[in-house]
Formats: sequence, C-alpha cells, structure tokens
Amino acid sequence: MTTIDLNADMGESFGPWVMGDDAALLGVISSANVACGFHAGDPVVMAQTIAQAKQAGVAVGAHPGFHDLQGFGRRDLHLTTAELTGLVQYQLGAFMGMAAAAGVPVAHLKLHGALANMCARDQEMALVCYRAALAVAPDLRLFVIAGTQQQRAAEQLNATFSAEIFADRAYQDDATLVPRGQAGAVLHDPAEAADRVLQMVTEGCVISQSGKRVDVPVQTICLHGDTQGAIDMARAVRARLEGAGVQIAAPQ
Amino acid sequence: MTTIDLNADMGESFGPWVMGDDAALLGVISSANVACGFHAGDPVVMAQTIAQAKQAGVAVGAHPGFHDLQGFGRRDLHLTTAELTGLVQYQLGAFMGMAAAAGVPVAHLKLHGALANMCARDQEMALVCYRAALAVAPDLRLFVIAGTQQQRAAEQLNATFSAEIFADRAYQDDATLVPRGQAGAVLHDPAEAADRVLQMVTEGCVISQSGKRVDVPVQTICLHGDTQGAIDMARAVRARLEGAGVQIAAPQ
Amino acid sequence: MTTIDLNADMGESFGPWVMGDDAALLGVISSANVACGFHAGDPVVMAQTIAQAKQAGVAVGAHPGFHDLQGFGRRDLHLTTAELTGLVQYQLGAFMGMAAAAGVPVAHLKLHGALANMCARDQEMALVCYRAALAVAPDLRLFVIAGTQQQRAAEQLNATFSAEIFADRAYQDDATLVPRGQAGAVLHDPAEAADRVLQMVTEGCVISQSGKRVDVPVQTICLHGDTQGAIDMARAVRARLEGAGVQIAAPQ
Amino acid sequence: MTTIDLNADMGESFGPWVMGDDAALLGVISSANVACGFHAGDPVVMAQTIAQAKQAGVAVGAHPGFHDLQGFGRRDLHLTTAELTGLVQYQLGAFMGMAAAAGVPVAHLKLHGALANMCARDQEMALVCYRAALAVAPDLRLFVIAGTQQQRAAEQLNATFSAEIFADRAYQDDATLVPRGQAGAVLHDPAEAADRVLQMVTEGCVISQSGKRVDVPVQTICLHGDTQGAIDMARAVRARLEGAGVQIAAPQ
Repeated sequence: MTTIDLNADMGESFGPWVMGDDAALLGVISSANVACGFHAGDPVVMAQTIAQAKQAGVAVGAHPGFHDLQGFGRRDLHLTTAELTGLVQYQLGAFMGMAAAAGVPVAHLKLHGALANMCARDQEMALVCYRAALAVAPDLRLFVIAGTQQQRAAEQLNATFSAEIFADRAYQDDATLVPRGQAGAVLHDPAEAADRVLQMVTEGCVISQSGKRVDVPVQTICLHGDTQGAIDMARAVRARLEGAGVQIAAPQ
Repeated sequence: MTTIDLNADMGESFGPWVMGDDAALLGVISSANVACGFHAGDPVVMAQTIAQAKQAGVAVGAHPGFHDLQGFGRRDLHLTTAELTGLVQYQLGAFMGMAAAAGVPVAHLKLHGALANMCARDQEMALVCYRAALAVAPDLRLFVIAGTQQQRAAEQLNATFSAEIFADRAYQDDATLVPRGQAGAVLHDPAEAADRVLQMVTEGCVISQSGKRVDVPVQTICLHGDTQGAIDMARAVRARLEGAGVQIAAPQ
Repeated sequence: MTTIDLNADMGESFGPWVMGDDAALLGVISSANVACGFHAGDPVVMAQTIAQAKQAGVAVGAHPGFHDLQGFGRRDLHLTTAELTGLVQYQLGAFMGMAAAAGVPVAHLKLHGALANMCARDQEMALVCYRAALAVAPDLRLFVIAGTQQQRAAEQLNATFSAEIFADRAYQDDATLVPRGQAGAVLHDPAEAADRVLQMVTEGCVISQSGKRVDVPVQTICLHGDTQGAIDMARAVRARLEGAGVQIAAPQ
Repeated sequence: MTTIDLNADMGESFGPWVMGDDAALLGVISSANVACGFHAGDPVVMAQTIAQAKQAGVAVGAHPGFHDLQGFGRRDLHLTTAELTGLVQYQLGAFMGMAAAAGVPVAHLKLHGALANMCARDQEMALVCYRAALAVAPDLRLFVIAGTQQQRAAEQLNATFSAEIFADRAYQDDATLVPRGQAGAVLHDPAEAADRVLQMVTEGCVISQSGKRVDVPVQTICLHGDTQGAIDMARAVRARLEGAGVQIAAPQ
C-alpha cells in the first residue's frame, strides 16, 4: 500500500494578526511546518499551533526563516556562515523547547521562503543550514525540495530526508518549477491538481508541464491553506489520494 | 572545604554593539548567564559566548528576559500566563539548541532584569516562569534570588535551585536589597565587597547593612563585568575567596 | 446645522498581515487615525492608507502607540519622559513626512491603545505626550477621550482639541466607560448604538447606562471596522445621523 | 577663501548600547548624519544627538538605512519601489519631526550603509530614494558619494547636493574606492590622510592611489569616530585644513 505525507506551513499568525486557516488544514495534512518566530509566528502562536496539531494527530516540524517579519521571510538576505548557523539553530532550538513542553516529538525541519529558495539553488548554503540543524538534532528528518540543491546537500550529509513536491505548481522538464508569471505556473483547479498529485505519487516521479516523467523522489506533498481555494484544493488532493487507496501519514 | 559558585550575565552584545568584557569575566566566574536574544544577544553572539565559556571551563545557563531590546529587558511588562510561558520556553529552547550544537550541557536558568525583579516580588509569576522552564527541561537548575518569591516558587515546585546573593548590593534586615538611590545601596569598594562576600559564604547567610545575619541560603554570587570597576571587584571577590580556601565551582 | 466627525483607526495591517476593512470604513468616516509603525502599520501600509483616505476625501491623523507589535500596543509600558517624548515625536514626524509626500495635511493626532488609556487616567503622562506632539506641530489638533485626563491635559496646554466618545461603549454616570466584562459594557446592536449616538450628538453630552445626561463635549465619534458587525454598526450610525440632518465632516 | 564641510555618522547608539564618541566628533565636524532608528539609533538617542549637535553648532541631517539592527544596515536588501520609498520617507519624516521639536533645521540627507552602496552602483535605486526624500522636503540637500550613481541621480533630479569623499579611503583612477581587502584600501596614518584631504580640497578633485587627479566635485569630507584612531585622524584632518586657511562649515 502506497503511503504519502501531506505537509503545510502553519502557525503563521503573529500577535493580533491572523493568517491562514490552520484548523481547516489540520483536518487534511499529516505534517505541519510551524513558523518559528523570525518570519512569522510568536511563542504564543507556536504553542497553540503545536497543541492543535497534537490534538489532530498531525506531526510537527520546525520551519525556520529569515528574521524579517515585514517581508515574511520572502526577501533574499546574504548571511555569513555564522549568521546562517545561528539563525537555524536558534529557531530549531526554540521550536524543540516548545515541542518538548507540549510532549510532542520534533518530526522534521523545513526551510521557509527566501531561505528555502536560496538553498534550493545553492548547495553550499543548504549544507550550512542542514549542518547547523543536525548539530542540534543529529537524527532530524529534513524536508527538501525534490531534485534541488537542498536534496543534494541532504544526500551529501547522509541525512534522513523526505523529498517534497508541490500540489499547485507546474514543473519543467528538468524538475524545476515553472517560474511564477509564466502561463500555467500555478494550478488553480482542485480536480486537476488532485489527479496530477495522484499520478506523481503512484508513479514516484514528477510530471512536467509537457507531460514528461521526471525522476525525483516524491515523499511529501506541499499544500496551502491561505485562501479558501487553497483549502478546497488541499481537501481535493487528500480525497483523491484516499479514494485511490493511498495512505496519508507522516514519514516514520 | 567550602565551595561557592560565581555567576555573571554575559553575551549581552547585539549585532555590532559590544557590551561588557566577557573575556575578562570568564577568567573569574564559574557560571555564565547567557542572554537569549530578547533583551540582548543574538544567535551569533550566543554561539560565540557559549564557545568562549566552554573553552574557559565555565558552565552556561539560559538568561531569558522580556522582549525589549531598547529597554534591555528592564521595563516592567504585565504578560498573560500564555505569553510568559511562551517567552521562557522559546528562549530556553533556543539556548538549549545552541548549547547542544556546541556540545555543552545547559547548567541552569536565571531570569533577567524586570522579569526577574517582578518574579522576586510575585510568587505566582515566578511559578509560571519556572513551570514553563521545567516543562522543557524537568531537571533544570534554577538560579533564584535568595529569600525572595523566586526561591519560594522554586521550593514549591521541588525544583533544584541555587540561591543567589549580590556581591555589590547592600541588604536590609529582611534580606531584601537596599533600594537603589538610598545611601550605601551599591558597594563600590572591591576590598569591602570581597570581605563581606567571604563572610556571607563562610557563614551561609546574608549580612545586612546594619550588621545583622539574615538566614537565607548562599549558593551563588552574582558579579558584574560592565565596567572596569566591576571587573576589579569581581577579581577581588574571587581572590579573597580562594585566599581563604574557598573553592570556586559551578553547582553540581 | 449640527456637524459631527466620525473617526476610526486604520492602516493596522503589517507586512503580509491584513487587519480590518479599511476600504469599507473609508466610505463611512470623515477622519482616519493612521497607525504609525510601532504597534501596527509599516511605511508601505501607511502610504497606502494615506493615499486611500485622500482619494475618499477622508482627513488623516497620526495614531502613535507603544513600540510593541506582538502586543498591538495594548500592554502598559512605564516609560521615562524622554522615552515618551521620543515615541510621540518620532511617530508623528514619520507620519507627517509620509503625509507631506502624499500632499495631504495632517489633521490630528490620537493616541493608541495602552498609551491612550494610561494618558486618560494620568494627566502628567498626557501632558508629556501632547507637549511632545505640539513641539513638532504647534497647531496640531488633538483627539482626546471626552471627560478624561487627556482632555484636562489638552485644556491645560490651550491646545486645539476634539473630544471623542465611543459609539459602541456604555458610559457610567461620571462619564467614564463601563469596564469591559461588566454587563452591557459593549453595545452590539447597530440600531441601538445609532439612536444613542444621535441623541448624544444632538444634545451635546454623553448618555450613561442609567440614562443620565453627563456633560462632556461630543465632537468626534469613534467607530470600528475590525469585524463585519463593526462595519454594519458604523454604517448604521452614519445613516442615522445623516437621516436626522446631521452633517458628517472632519473638524475644521 | 576655500570652505569645506566635514561630516560624520552619529547617533548610532541604541538603547543601552553605546557606539562611537559623538562628543569628541562634534568638536571636529560641521555636519552630523543622524541615524534614524532603522539600522541604529532610537528616538531617545536621536533627540540627544540632535540636542548635542545644536549646542555644538553642528548642522544635522537624516541618515536613513535598511531596517536591520542586527546587521547595522550593512546587508543588501532588494526592496520594491514602494518599500524603498516608504523606508526613506518614514525615517526622514521621523527625523524632521524630532529636529523641529529641537528647533533645528534639517540640513541634508545621506543614505547609510548597504542602502548607500547599492545606490552608488544603481542609479534607478538612487532615483527612487532621492525622489522619495524630495517628495517630503523638496529643497533638501543630498549628500552624494562623489562620482557615483548617487551623484548622477541627484543631477538628473536637479537636486541640491554636496559631493562627498572619504578621508580614510584610497581611490582608483576611475574615482571609485579601492575595495577593502586590497593593499592600501584604508588609510591609517592621520598625517598622510590629512595631507591628502588638503590636496583634494584645494585642487577640487580626488587623488587616486596612483597619484592621478580624478575630476569629481569635493564638497564634504566623511570622517569617522568609532575608534580612537578615527578620532585622531578626524582631528588631524581638521587641523591641517584650518592650518592651511580652509574654512570648515556646513554647506549653505
């Protein structure tokens, strides 16, 4: 029986500002990437998110990003090795502390936003971030974007990892994403996205915009919950997978 | 043979701004209270401070404070239980993560500034902070201000703690500090401070301004390093203690 | 013909986080209190808010608060005179700069959240804040909470001010608000609130929960826009006032 | 009689952290560039700096930077036009508010750190920043780095500007700075720096490392005060200029 993980970014509210519909997403996903206070989230939001995920039986992981609330961690920053290392270790440690207080294991780490995108292109930078994380928690599972320098870095470190693809993004023939702004870069139709995810999960590869099978591992699917349309798509993906007998579960 | 711990706040630089002479203090103290990024310190400063303390054979503990850089954590904030809990767990976790990466045990936790002073007066608030910390690290040693509601709270929780007195502050007959602004509240003479500390350590009690012995435990002495005078006093205290055969060591 | 001002807090989004329905409110109010980046808002949000208000023909004023994003400026802070002065002058100046760039006059200043509430109780603190503001802009109109120490302070400074009452809050016989948590403290029925506002505007006094007329000036009405119910009430208040021939306009 | 301006960055302390020796520098310079709270400074520090400069008869200008305290505004950030515009207008406005409260005119604006360096290379970015500033204060004098895209942008906008050279940096034959890290990039000898500055001021051009005269305007000299050596050099430069009959004064 095929098993797949469904993950989503959560805990992105801050102080009085609410973002996303975490309660709805928790009914769909098996792994939650919890913002760690630098690009979103604060300690109270983190604690609430971890508690809600625990109650829903959803695994939780750290989701560190650049220290840039106004930019939501989506603006490139060129940091030194010491700065990157500290950034990852501080946020991961904070998350581990709060997870320990909640009696919940730390299931994984996934990089956020511009930090993630820069590491997808730059293996050295990914190595710095992952070495930093593994120095804190040597057995930590890394969520890496399938086929990118993130995956190369995790492989080089012999780290445990799960390769991630996106339910709502079109792929090019080299397994990279069709850039936003190009036609068809983002999928909006829940049924179409669900069908494509099922194919990719059962065949164990990415299917490009041109229909080509691209050989990358497919171990966790990234969903979104920031709009009602995103929630609808997430639900459609899960329903389609379950309907086809695929089991939804966090990686073991 | 009598043993006593000497502690000091460290890692209070931030970005390009340097505070204190940590290198000098590390030659004097046995326990370093490391700022955790909310009132002072940043991840790079934390990592450097932990590494320097490790090299000097000085134990390190978390030193969480209010999230108030401009005010250096010295301005009162009235937080909810959830906010206080998150504040302590987040900073403690971050510190634990960075200590783990450095291969250093987390020896203790000491509250900073206004957070500490409010908890010294308010047992309920101290209980919230200490429960939060112990939920993350159940065996964590707490540094509590001797004779205050901090100590009461630690006792009520059956926590492991070390009671702290101040080398440079005068005491009243009820074991509380002579308020700053009153005559003699702060000791400036290294020799006088060193003599008094030795007496308090060997007799195991606080000696008030009027000369009264006040029965509180004396397990760790707080020193400062923000001025040359403070460094001189710290060295005088250590020299006086060692000269009298007192061993300087972090609590076991 | 009676004229009254309707004001609301606006521009409280921050980075990617949206708060309130500013577009809807701009169709109802005559004065917008624009957050200045310390408790909410950022320069981009400020510029957008000022531009939208200009287009809607709504006057804009500075709405400074404590520097506390996570707490939305709603947590008490005890600041020095220098800190309070700087806090007000910095935010007011920033707002004046952005208003000048938009070609819009700065119509007023209204204190936010805990800063406002503390100044409503503490005339000395209100004097510090208002003196600070008037040192930057000597002719600036102050929005003061009617009947409070804010009003006393503005009177003592011979400042131009508009006294403000709340459309959705019940009053006690001494013109202070019924504390939140007491029965009836907050009005939820748009029609009831609208009727009461009309009475208070035409009679020029506050009407307490017990029905008593309390003699305070009534020059601007505070509305909210953070929920659909609040928007509905704001619209009901305006419609009721206009239906009775009251003109809605910012103070001249 | 030749007149030249001497400028330095000031007000770079933050909360409890002190940076630089502003009091010493105020005895040397004629124009102070005051940090505006985003990369350094806070409202209390700004007010103190403006007051000290006023007392010393030194002109003050706004010195806006990226919103990055930990990085001191020295890390590149790629912002949108709206973000850059808001960044400049907010900080300039805040500074103007505080200068108005102190009864001091705003003499100029100089960009800080990475913001300045990016604008020295990128005329479009410089145009965005300068247009933003001039929309707030149309007659504002800009301090531009001589011969760079900053100067081009100021010329294109027909703005009033003063071209700035550095007392302690070596120049290449194209009037750009010798990159840090290359031999001789930074001058350390006060006498040598003072002689070179005098030559550049009296000849009205930059003198490159190879001895070539490079034709750029020389209207203000940037000095530093972050070390004792820097203060010594600043004093040597002023003494050498005054000894040669050059008048030190802010631009009129």
